[in-house]
Amino acid sequence: MNAEVHSSGDAPVPVDDRGLAFGDGVFETILVRDGQPLLWESHLARLHAGLQRLGIPAPEPDALTVLPAQAGHGLAILKLMITRGSGGRGYQVPEDVQPRLRWRIMPFAPRSERWQDGIAVRSCAWRLARQPALAGLKHLNRLDNVLARREWTDPAIAEGLLRDGEGVLIEATAMNLAWFDRDARRWLTPRLEQCGVAGTLREVLLEEGQLTEVEAGPAALEQAEAACVFNSVQGVWPLERWLEGVRSDTAVLRCHWRLRDPAVQKPLRDLQAAAHARLGYPRM
Amino acid sequence: MNAEVHSSGDAPVPVDDRGLAFGDGVFETILVRDGQPLLWESHLARLHAGLQRLGIPAPEPDALTVLPAQAGHGLAILKLMITRGSGGRGYQVPEDVQPRLRWRIMPFAPRSERWQDGIAVRSCAWRLARQPALAGLKHLNRLDNVLARREWTDPAIAEGLLRDGEGVLIEATAMNLAWFDRDARRWLTPRLEQCGVAGTLREVLLEEGQLTEVEAGPAALEQAEAACVFNSVQGVWPLERWLEGVRSDTAVLRCHWRLRDPAVQKPLRDLQAAAHARLGYPRM
Repeated sequence: MNAEVHSSGDAPVPVDDRGLAFGDGVFETILVRDGQPLLWESHLARLHAGLQRLGIPAPEPDALTVLPAQAGHGLAILKLMITRGSGGRGYQVPEDVQPRLRWRIMPFAPRSERWQDGIAVRSCAWRLARQPALAGLKHLNRLDNVLARREWTDPAIAEGLLRDGEGVLIEATAMNLAWFDRDARRWLTPRLEQCGVAGTLREVLLEEGQLTEVEAGPAALEQAEAACVFNSVQGVWPLERWLEGVRSDTAVLRCHWRLRDPAVQKPLRDLQAAAHARLGYPRM
Repeated sequence: MNAEVHSSGDAPVPVDDRGLAFGDGVFETILVRDGQPLLWESHLARLHAGLQRLGIPAPEPDALTVLPAQAGHGLAILKLMITRGSGGRGYQVPEDVQPRLRWRIMPFAPRSERWQDGIAVRSCAWRLARQPALAGLKHLNRLDNVLARREWTDPAIAEGLLRDGEGVLIEATAMNLAWFDRDARRWLTPRLEQCGVAGTLREVLLEEGQLTEVEAGPAALEQAEAACVFNSVQGVWPLERWLEGVRSDTAVLRCHWRLRDPAVQKPLRDLQAAAHARLGYPRM
């Protein structure tokens, strides 16, 4: 069933909107080049999976397909959000749900120096809550991500690695995670059956056979020949250093990947090339 | 540190508000009688605990204390919400947080027939995610409650009982839970160290020694002489029937408490009287 949604771009939202009150909705953040969305089908698929799981009627397809073209020339981010709208009694949803669509287009430039040089990551103390019924979805309940990201401010640390309540490595705060296994000679990425966001770039790399899902053992990443974080907006950032601490100048070095070493370079640049081909980003 | 908050009652919220984008904020729902808030100190304490945990500066006390009086004569609900405001880069919070306060006052009439007659509850299939770092707080990430409440629509079923991911009984979708233990001769309520909302009425009943926190075994509720759900808005609803199903006319009866039996009446009406004294509601 498709719903007629209330949409008016970036208009303010009534204070009784259930997205605001309860995080009752989903969102997508889409890279758009010259008005053409990248990985559009994957974004739509995840959006619809989220709406279905939450029981929010999906908007008419046209309500979404017209949006990317409005970004005009150059690189931009289209952020769109669909909430369950207003109404209901407390947590109870209204009988006649009128979803609310909001969207914004923002100019965008990727952190391209990180494609080449890689990044430093740290371990977050925050643990992701296990909730298999919502795992993988990009819903509006994102306090885990916000509070994990709040652990550090040093700009020299680009991302934080997140474990779940059982200590299993899952993702980074805003990116998925992969590592090249020394023995299997494959890129591995954590299963997201308990928590985490199933990124659209992760989805297409899984479909292409570039990635294999695993349950990450505690030492998987340290023993890996190469590792990276990635998403559909920034592309692939190789991991150069894994730190323990909140400041790069005082943190303990846990792991160091020598990005110029051919054994590290080769798998990394191959995965990056495959990913960047899907986003229109260059091979490094 | 107290922050100057952006407040304008129930004005719409910008689409980049972090409460909307990520559920990055907290709320309270307060019973107000003739302009006087009930359990005000407990509501403020939980609000501040939530703000501190999330790292959102608290508003000047005056910004909140002036609100209940605006409800005027009669019974009303004051709902107030504080978000981290706008700004930041994705999940990353802005350096200079400008919290946003919104509030609404709605006329209110409690479901007083339920005080006397009790209610039917059902078991929710939905499981609460364990997240000890946020347990007890009334933050804006409430998909667990919304999706649990969405399991049934039959108005003859007043509440749903929620277990966590390990199967431990925690609360109802919008109320806390207690039962009178046959052997201990005490009212018990689940510990909320892993998940659940620590209701303000629950807090004051714990402080008064009316309730004792326990980890609920699987059969605790069934073996109880009496049971109830309660919150600071509706007061205490005795449990009359515990059903398994989504419709009261086809559900399997799991438990039946004979509310006219003196052994059930006595502890129930005593707890209810203690709770209702705090809310200005009558003894039954």
